[in-house]
Formats: sequence, structure tokens, C-alpha cells
Amino acid sequence: MNTPQNLSLNARSHTCGQVDLAALDQEITLVGWVNRRRDHGGVIFVDLRDRDGMVQVVFDPDDLTVFGMAESLRSEFVIRVVGKVRRRPAGTENPNIVSGQIEVLGLGLSILNRSEPLPFQLDDERVAEEHRLRHRYLDLRRPEMLAKLRLRHQVTRAMREYLDNAGFIDVETPVLTRATPEGARDYLVPSRTHPGEFFALPQSPQLFKQLLMVAGLERYYQIVKCFRDEDLRADRQPEFTQLDIETSFMDEQEVMALIEDMMRHLFARTVEIALPDPLPRLTWAEAMRRFGSDKPDLRIPLELVDVADLLVDVDFKVFSGPATDPRGRVAALRVPKGNELPRSAIDEYTKYVSIFGAKGLAYIKINDAAAGREGLQSPILKFLTDEAIAGIMARTGAVTGDLVFFGADKAKIVNESLGALRVKLGHDLGIVEAGFRALWVTEFPMFEYDEKDGRYYALHHPFTAPNPEDIEQLGSNPEAVRSRAYDFVLNGYELGGGSVRIHDQDLQKRIFGLLGISAEEAEEKFGFLLDALKYGAPPMAGVAFGLDRVVMLMSGATSIREVIAFPKTQSAACPLTDAPGEVDEAQLRELSIRVRKPVVEKE
Amino acid sequence: MNTPQNLSLNARSHTCGQVDLAALDQEITLVGWVNRRRDHGGVIFVDLRDRDGMVQVVFDPDDLTVFGMAESLRSEFVIRVVGKVRRRPAGTENPNIVSGQIEVLGLGLSILNRSEPLPFQLDDERVAEEHRLRHRYLDLRRPEMLAKLRLRHQVTRAMREYLDNAGFIDVETPVLTRATPEGARDYLVPSRTHPGEFFALPQSPQLFKQLLMVAGLERYYQIVKCFRDEDLRADRQPEFTQLDIETSFMDEQEVMALIEDMMRHLFARTVEIALPDPLPRLTWAEAMRRFGSDKPDLRIPLELVDVADLLVDVDFKVFSGPATDPRGRVAALRVPKGNELPRSAIDEYTKYVSIFGAKGLAYIKINDAAAGREGLQSPILKFLTDEAIAGIMARTGAVTGDLVFFGADKAKIVNESLGALRVKLGHDLGIVEAGFRALWVTEFPMFEYDEKDGRYYALHHPFTAPNPEDIEQLGSNPEAVRSRAYDFVLNGYELGGGSVRIHDQDLQKRIFGLLGISAEEAEEKFGFLLDALKYGAPPMAGVAFGLDRVVMLMSGATSIREVIAFPKTQSAACPLTDAPGEVDEAQLRELSIRVRKPVVEKE
Repeated sequence: MNTPQNLSLNARSHTCGQVDLAALDQEITLVGWVNRRRDHGGVIFVDLRDRDGMVQVVFDPDDLTVFGMAESLRSEFVIRVVGKVRRRPAGTENPNIVSGQIEVLGLGLSILNRSEPLPFQLDDERVAEEHRLRHRYLDLRRPEMLAKLRLRHQVTRAMREYLDNAGFIDVETPVLTRATPEGARDYLVPSRTHPGEFFALPQSPQLFKQLLMVAGLERYYQIVKCFRDEDLRADRQPEFTQLDIETSFMDEQEVMALIEDMMRHLFARTVEIALPDPLPRLTWAEAMRRFGSDKPDLRIPLELVDVADLLVDVDFKVFSGPATDPRGRVAALRVPKGNELPRSAIDEYTKYVSIFGAKGLAYIKINDAAAGREGLQSPILKFLTDEAIAGIMARTGAVTGDLVFFGADKAKIVNESLGALRVKLGHDLGIVEAGFRALWVTEFPMFEYDEKDGRYYALHHPFTAPNPEDIEQLGSNPEAVRSRAYDFVLNGYELGGGSVRIHDQDLQKRIFGLLGISAEEAEEKFGFLLDALKYGAPPMAGVAFGLDRVVMLMSGATSIREVIAFPKTQSAACPLTDAPGEVDEAQLRELSIRVRKPVVEKE
Repeated sequence: MNTPQNLSLNARSHTCGQVDLAALDQEITLVGWVNRRRDHGGVIFVDLRDRDGMVQVVFDPDDLTVFGMAESLRSEFVIRVVGKVRRRPAGTENPNIVSGQIEVLGLGLSILNRSEPLPFQLDDERVAEEHRLRHRYLDLRRPEMLAKLRLRHQVTRAMREYLDNAGFIDVETPVLTRATPEGARDYLVPSRTHPGEFFALPQSPQLFKQLLMVAGLERYYQIVKCFRDEDLRADRQPEFTQLDIETSFMDEQEVMALIEDMMRHLFARTVEIALPDPLPRLTWAEAMRRFGSDKPDLRIPLELVDVADLLVDVDFKVFSGPATDPRGRVAALRVPKGNELPRSAIDEYTKYVSIFGAKGLAYIKINDAAAGREGLQSPILKFLTDEAIAGIMARTGAVTGDLVFFGADKAKIVNESLGALRVKLGHDLGIVEAGFRALWVTEFPMFEYDEKDGRYYALHHPFTAPNPEDIEQLGSNPEAVRSRAYDFVLNGYELGGGSVRIHDQDLQKRIFGLLGISAEEAEEKFGFLLDALKYGAPPMAGVAFGLDRVVMLMSGATSIREVIAFPKTQSAACPLTDAPGEVDEAQLRELSIRVRKPVVEKE
């Protein structure tokens, strides 16, 4: 046996996933990991694994030196095998793998490294995620994990390929930058050379990409890490990756057309799926009306319908109140074959919508649509006029066997509760279509009024341009002003969003003012942007996509942690490296900071 | 005039750099910036600029509406022009630009945005860099700056293209990670969810890429931001970009062959230059002997030669001392035609080498090589025997008109001083060859002994494998142990470096021990690496390239700041965004830190 140090270790003739009948009778060289060793009939069988697949190697006792060494092999040993390809005995073929027709008779064997028994079985589904993350380098050995990392690379390749060909320039923007004034909490980095001052890690390169447009780059993109110090959910990480794009001289129609073309290219190149051309577009108002959501999952064939006008006069405050409130909404959701739902399920859904603030969940079961009021079953039936019932039946299209749910409250509560119920019902009833349903949502409101803070917030960000048709309402009725923003939605996830930006200094100042940002504050926080807008800023529009989410959906994963090589836990920690960690007092002293509280014991 | 908001702004028919005689008599649409406006003979000439070039637009007073608007144009206004392409009048052609044969008669004009007068003239070379950085979005409008950003993109494209095709997988590693125990100062990020603990920004993804090899990825790359909180020099930035590569089952010869093939591809694809195949390789020992440097600039045709053996017995302690010291060196550097150097120049060089610790700079001028001792001129001539003189003449190959410099001291001082002098002479004498001279430097020493700290340091990093031939000297004579590291050197810059890694847990522990890292410390700091090496770590080797430096050299820039869109100053600040900056007390409180000193007033 040669020592690994002296070998030309790249000198394998085939990868394990590659060997098939074409190599019959050849002497080949393989490297890889012992996936499994079995002893059977005096012969040793080794499933040898590399990143491309698996092949069966057989050691028989004819060659005692090699066989003796093969006897020492254990799972996950790293070996190099020289052997001869032969047909597997009839009846032992494995049709599921490329190499399933052959096996390799081991003639030479080098052990490149040994392995202790693994801390967990790779394919054991019961292993806790934290334990897997602590040994992520083992968890990633699972072929399905490797496949996700590879898909992620294919996705970025396809994105780059498209954008490179479309004349976009990949430009890196700073990671050590200035604190973002709006948005989520920043990660801060103390400066050593400027004591008492801090950099912030970017939540997005928004301002830099606008400055690149002012610089005249015209088409920019970057696949870039962004950072938010937020409390984590399943699809959030402290650091996440964004496909960031900005263009000059394009309006929203042109940007959407370009970006959806890129997404079609991406899906075709990676998962071989053809997205429709063009993609459907819904205004924000229509999306809310039909799906109660600004990121509707179109795979679910259920829709909300407005019935307020039918219920204005009913003697039932729960309905008539919202029906006459300008900020109220009364909507119905028809569930085909829903009258099979047992009482317990309806109670469950009633509880579910209460999460979103709904005070109840009225319903009507349609036992016999032809029988009028008699064919219906509902606790609220007594409050409804025949006319209202007929209207509801007509408008929802309910037929015998269906059930209709109702939401009646402030529009926000109705949308959130029935929107979520719609999705839940889709999954519970197994009526979610397969595949990918993408769309654009457009014409978002420019502002959202926060009753608690008593001020407006930008629904997208403060650099989003208002719809020129609505500009005169900026002063009188800000809530009615639509922005030039657009979101790319796939299967109920917002994968990307963007807008036409404000390139006019005066308009930008006016928007800051509406958002309650004083002139001084604007100057202090955004002075460099306002400055840049003075010197010939071109019209600009852009978009940003969440790469982790894109890959998660494409790979069928349920958490973005599955498509990130080294993710953090929900408490924003890395069990593998044990980050964050304590640091030397001397380091803190150099940075002119000190820890405020006594250091908490590490869990 | 339409308002910009209502236009389909992408609807230009040509870019400015694109219009030529092929478009003669066509009506075309252009967008861009007013580079210059001249009024001449009652006509207005506008040089219209976009990112692809420039075109001349003419407005004549026949159309008073358009002409009136054209009169309001100022430099850097953003406009849209509809016009007719016509031949320039004979004698006014500009052969330097694509559009030099034509001009565009402006028929329609929209002003998309106005511009105040710029704070500096874009092409004014005297503008201070800090002022340019404060308005970087204007500085980047200079075509040569845009060209550098585009070259940078072409470089990363060519790298990705090569590596994608070679089966490398692009994997992102964390930015929020654990403090690096060896190396430069870390940037720290306080954790909110783990009070008193800190993330560090990575100085390189070294350990993560090794873990990816343990995971079985076999071939990894990433173009990734890295961070070092060091005091800055011309070619350093707090955040810099690295092409990071790691492989399994390859030895150093194979990695070097692959990487240099990638570099040939890169140079061929971007700057159309053919690098030699194969690239020259020098051992570290040879590089030091001939060039006094481990990153020799081979464009300079000057070499050091050892002359210690000729000077062992001379009655001149300055020479005989180092000549008999095992850590000493006496070397000569022949300067062709050097005897024309005036006394003042030699004094200058003497001062120059003193920066590197040299106590003097002996020399011999060769006025007449045929005349023996009489033909030479030197303050040290009297100390040298005829035999020594003859030996020096023979070994340096000095001829009439040359000058020979001498360095005699500890080898380190001789190498650093004569190595630097060699480069300086090359530039001063104008004998630096044009083009690119790349090479590999190999067989670095494993350790460097630090007299001050009384301990060994890893010359590369503690994960570098020792040369198997030297392993038995690890205990007895560590300084003699060569590592399996290699550097890629171009024109005197180390552009990249790498090594075969240690994949054996016991050897890794032993190296930690030699570096004075106790078992406990190793466990605490590198426990996760040592753990990973237990479970079937494959043989691995990799490399990392400094992207900023690569692009700097390829573009002929003199500082990496020129090839970074938004660089920081030497004090690690961003004049554009004014980062770093002060933050709210509330933010610090959330992060459980406080500023140690009273906040220093911002300069």
C-alpha cells in the first residue's frame, strides 16, 4: 500500500456514479467513501460512494493481502481501489443505480483515511436537527443534501448566465456599511480606527445599487449576502442571499417582462419546467379580493367572494356592521364537497382563524341546493333573508355537497384569516395542484398607516416611486396612492420584489416628509442619496429575489436551512463552530467597547 | 414633452456607443447623459454619453420647440433624444469613436432629469481621492472606471466558466462565524440573542471549505468577501474578495496544473494574453537565492548571486562575518550599465536599503573589466583579494560599464534589502519588461521562528501539510521542514496561495503542538475541525486568490481601490456613506455592549 501522501490522488479513472457496462473487463481506479461493508459467503462487499454515486466493490479471499486490508474497512473509511469491472451475477443487479449491472473486483486497495463510527446514522430521520447541524459535514454526506447544494449552484449559474447575456454587470457592494434607517434591526460591527463608531451589515444593497445607476452602469446585478438581526422563523436566517438587480431607463412593465423571462430560463435550465409566458399579473387589490393575500398560492382552487352588498340589511350585526363599514369586509369562501367536514373540523378552523383576529367562523352547509332554505344547514341561517341566501348561492356558485365559510370584520382581519384558511383548506383537503404557479402582484399601496405609531410606513421602502396617476392624492389621501412596486409570487411565497425608484430629488424629499422623516433626519441619514439625485440620476427600477427561498421551493425543501450549507439555528447560533462565542477582553478594549451585562453562561 | 414617468424608457433603438454609418438616414432613439454641450454657429452640439460610448447630437434652430429645450441642457442632464442619423460634414469626423462618422440631428428631446453643476470635473486629475470617493457615483462615470468594473465582471465570469466546467460546486459559507484564532485581527459582531458573545467576520472560509471536503463535495469554489481589521496599505482593504477553491483527492502538482490552466483561460478570455504552458516553478529556496523574494518580479532582468564562499577570508568583517554565519548571507547584484549611476543615486539606494535593516550598501563600479583591479572603482576594493575580485567578476558576469551592489548581513536582511533594491532598480532604470510574468513558488518552509515571541509560526496556516520527505525532522529541526504550500506570483505580487491540507487528525494535533497550541486550546478553538478529521476526511488541497489584486494587475491600476466600486479609505472609512457612524444607545443596549471611551469627535 502506498501512503496517501505519495499518491497522485486525482488519478481515478472513473467516478463511482459513472461506471457501467461500458467499462466491462477494464481495470479501473476509484476513490471514495465506504458507504457500507457486508461480508457474505466468505466475500467482502463494499458499497463505494463518491459525490456522483455508488458502485459495488467485491474483495474475495484469493488475494490475501488485499482481502486482509479489506477486512479492516469500516463505514466512511476513505479508500482508493484498483479493480476489474465484471457483470454482477444474474439476479443481483440493481436497476436503481447507473452501476447496477456491474461490480468491481478489488485487486488493489489503499486506505486514504480511517473513520470512527459516526455519531449518528446518516439516514436516520429521527436525529435532531441541532445534532445534525453540529456535525453538518456528515449531514451533508446524504445524497439528497448534496443534491440541494448542487441545485443551488445550478440556480445561480442559470441566473448569471441570463443576466450576463442581457448585459448586466456584476458589481460587489460593501458589507461594512452604514446603518439602515428603516427596516429590520441591523447587525453592527464596532470600528477600531473610529472609536465609538459602528459599521452595519447591509440589509440589502438598495442605496448602493441606486448609486450605481446614478454612476451610469445602467444594468447591475449581484448575488449577495444580506443580514437582518430578527427573531427567526422557518424561512428566515440572520444571513441570507439575495439576487439583486437594478436597471436604468426601464419602467415596471419592462422590468417585469425581463425578470419573468429570466425566471422562465431558470426553471427551464434547472428543474426543466416551463413557466407560462407571460406570467399572470394581479393587482394588489384583486389579489386581496380573490385570495385575501398579497402572495396568493394559485395552486389552491379556492377563492374569496365579496358578499357585503347582500348583507347590508340583515338583522345580524356580525355581518351588517362590517358590510356598512368602509374599512370592513364581508367575504365568502366556497369549499367544494365541504359539507362532509365534521363539526370537530369546523371547530378546528374556527380556532385557526382566531389566530388572525377573527372572532368566529360562520358557515353554511349545502345539503341540497335545489331545496332552497330547507336544503341548507347553518347556525346563521335564521338571520339571512331568502334574497341574501339566493345571492350568496349565486355568487359563490355553491352546489349540493359544498360548504361556504364567511369572514366579516375589518378588511385586514377578513383577508388574513380567510386568506390563511384558504391555504390550510387546500392542504387539508388535498386539492393543492402539483407544480409551480408563479405570478406578479402589482399596484401595491404606497403607504400603510400604523394606528399604534400614528404614522405612515412605506409598504415597500421609502425609495419606491408613486404611481403618477395618483400623485395628486399624496397630500390629501396618501392611503389611496398606489406605488410602482411589484412582487414575484410563487406557490404562496414572495420570492422577489421590486419597484420603480424615485429619481427626482424633490419627490424623494416629499416622500420622506410623508413618512415622518424630518428634513434634518433625511439629510443626516440619506444625505448621500439626496446628493446623488442632484447630479443627473437616471430613471431606475429594480428587483431583489430571495435566493434561499427560490432554491427551497425548487428543491421541495420545507425550510431554507436545508438549502444553506452551514445555516444557523432559530436562536441565531451555529452548533458546528459554536458561534457566537466569547472573545478576549483585549480585543474588546481595542474596539473601545465593553460587555454591558455579566456574561451569561452558555447553554 | 412626455414626463419620464409615462415613458417606456427602455425604448431606445441604439446605445450611444453603437450608432455608426449603418444607421444612416434612420430615425433613432437614444438615452444618456449630456457629456458636453457646445454652441457653435447658431447650432447646439451635445455629446451624448451612455455606458457604451458617445455620440454627437445636433440641435438646429429650425425646430424652435426642440431648440428651446436644447438650450436649457447642461452637463450631466439625463435626456432622451429622437433624431435622424446623418454624415458629419467632411473634416469634422472623429476617427477615435465608433460614432465618429455620423451625427444625430435632434428632432425630439425629453429631459429625464436635470443636474446641478458637478462638484468636480470628472477628468480633473488633481481632485483628491477622498473627494472623489465622497462622490463615488460621479467618479465612476469616468469611462476608465466603468471599464475597470466591467473587467472585474469579465474576470469573475471567466473564473466561474472554467470552474463550473471543471465540476466545481459554488457553495456559500457563513459571514457570521467564529473568531479566527491565528492570523490578523477579526472584525467582531455582537450577538443580540447571546449577550456578551460575538460573531467574527471570516478572514477566509478556510475551515468551512475543509469541512465541505469532509462532507464529500470533492470540488468547491466560491468568490467571497473576506475581512481583516488591519492597518491599511495601498493594496489592502478591510473587506476584500477572494476566489476560494478546495479539492479532494488531488496533490499539489495536480492542483497547480489545474489552477494555472484556469489562469491561462482567464487571461486569454479577458485581456487576450497567452500565459506560458506550463508556468515556471521556483522553489522558495531558489526564489530567495536568485531574487531575494518569495514573490519575485520576473519582469526585472536582475538577479542576486551568492558570493559568501569568495569572501570568507577577506579582512573585512562586514563581509567575512555574514559569510561565516550559518544564518548570514553575502550576495551580489549586478546592474548592467550601472557605473553611470551618480554618487547621489548610490546614496539614495543606500538609504533605501536601510529601510530593510541593511547597514550599508557596498558596490564596485566596473570602468574597465579588462584592466583588473585598476579598472574597478569602489570604497571596499582595498579589502578584497585579487582572487575574490576575480571570483565576483566571474560569478556576476559583470562587464565594463556595470556596477555590482553587495548585501552582507543576516540572510533575511540581505534578501529583503537586495530583493527590494532589485525591484526599485528595475523601475528606475526602465528595464522592466512589458506584459505579465507568472510563476509558482513552491516548497515553502513550514515554520518561521519568531525570536521575539520565542515560538514558531506557520508560514502559511496551521492546516498546511508538511512535505512527507521532511516529516522526521518535525521534532528535531522544524525550520528545515518544507510544507506542501504553493504561491501563484505575478509581476512581483502574490496573487494566490494554497497548500495540501493535513487530513490526518494525529498529524494535525502534532502541528498544533509545534505551534505552541496546547491540546486544550486546540480543542477549544479547532475542536470541530479535529472532530471532522475523525470521520473519514479525504486528502485535500486548495488555493485562494485575491480577486482585487488580480483585477488591479490586469487593468493596470496601481491600487485595489480603483477596482472596487465603493472602497474604503486608509483609515477604513467610507466618505460616501460616512460609515462607520454613531448608533443609538438603545441599539447598543439591545446588543449588551457599551462604548468604552467618550465618543471621539468625528473628523
